[in-house]
Amino acid sequence: MDINAVNALTYEEFLEIFGNVVEKCPIIPAAIWSHRPFRGVADIEAQISDFIDSLPESGKEGILRCHPDLSLPAVSLTRDSVDEQRAAGLVCMDSGERALLLELCARYRQRFGFPFVICARANSVESIGHALRERANGERAQERERGIEEVKKICSLRLRQILQPHTEHSTSTNKL
Amino acid sequence: MDINAVNALTYEEFLEIFGNVVEKCPIIPAAIWSHRPFRGVADIEAQISDFIDSLPESGKEGILRCHPDLSLPAVSLTRDSVDEQRAAGLVCMDSGERALLLELCARYRQRFGFPFVICARANSVESIGHALRERANGERAQERERGIEEVKKICSLRLRQILQPHTEHSTSTNKL
Repeated sequence: MDINAVNALTYEEFLEIFGNVVEKCPIIPAAIWSHRPFRGVADIEAQISDFIDSLPESGKEGILRCHPDLSLPAVSLTRDSVDEQRAAGLVCMDSGERALLLELCARYRQRFGFPFVICARANSVESIGHALRERANGERAQERERGIEEVKKICSLRLRQILQPHTEHSTSTNKL
Repeated sequence: MDINAVNALTYEEFLEIFGNVVEKCPIIPAAIWSHRPFRGVADIEAQISDFIDSLPESGKEGILRCHPDLSLPAVSLTRDSVDEQRAAGLVCMDSGERALLLELCARYRQRFGFPFVICARANSVESIGHALRERANGERAQERERGIEEVKKICSLRLRQILQPHTEHSTSTNKL
């Protein structure tokens, strides 16, 4: 799908396609539709990032709370999340690894009042476990910001899956 | 459900119950969970209203765009919307009335770039048709504000359905 096709979409069509680029937050793509025409995928990404940054701190925590826990049963996940968690190897963990991850995630949620969010596609089970142990000791404001940075990475990859589905995706290259 | 029970909910439980008080915008109850403990239903309502008011204009339009058209097939509606549209008599319109409403809604969407939103429970088919014809000639900024006022009325009634399910609901009485 190229950017001219995106700019020709009604808001209903745009939401049908882009509604979950930020997990369970269709309000975000629905809001930035106001800023058409978009110059390219990087422009859509920047509009979403600016919108998120404009939210009060509670709104950023609200975005995090719309995300699933990493190791919850796959039945409660959106299609996007299942694919992402599979890419990180999270779907084929053994039960001991899963129990440990569940325990760490529960401790994190308990401490911060929002879930541990990480871009699964940019990580492995090992790096996620490492990040979880390290971030579990952080401060709430810092974790809110780190979580939101991960939300933006996830969004970037989801956008590129829609607009550039046949190229290799990397969080470090933001080519238009 | 009383307010003490609400204040004892985890954010996951809170979202399970309050996730759709603003149509398809779980981010809003997820955000205001940060402001617990709540003093009562009016306090939750005020927190939601303040959060909506804090959004940029595009965010308010985003909320409107998450709402269904009044006369779309029931299959695409959330359970809440079906009940509300039934209360207004929208579910039992004949095909001529439905076609007219569809046409007026499409014209409204075309003009403003967001759907016509009205609190169906506080209206009848007749008053909705009247409001639609009148509001279709408004200005975009004014319609955005009127739509958001309707979103808040819908939210108020949905909150009271959860917290005071056995009392009579009215948009004009905001008793705690």
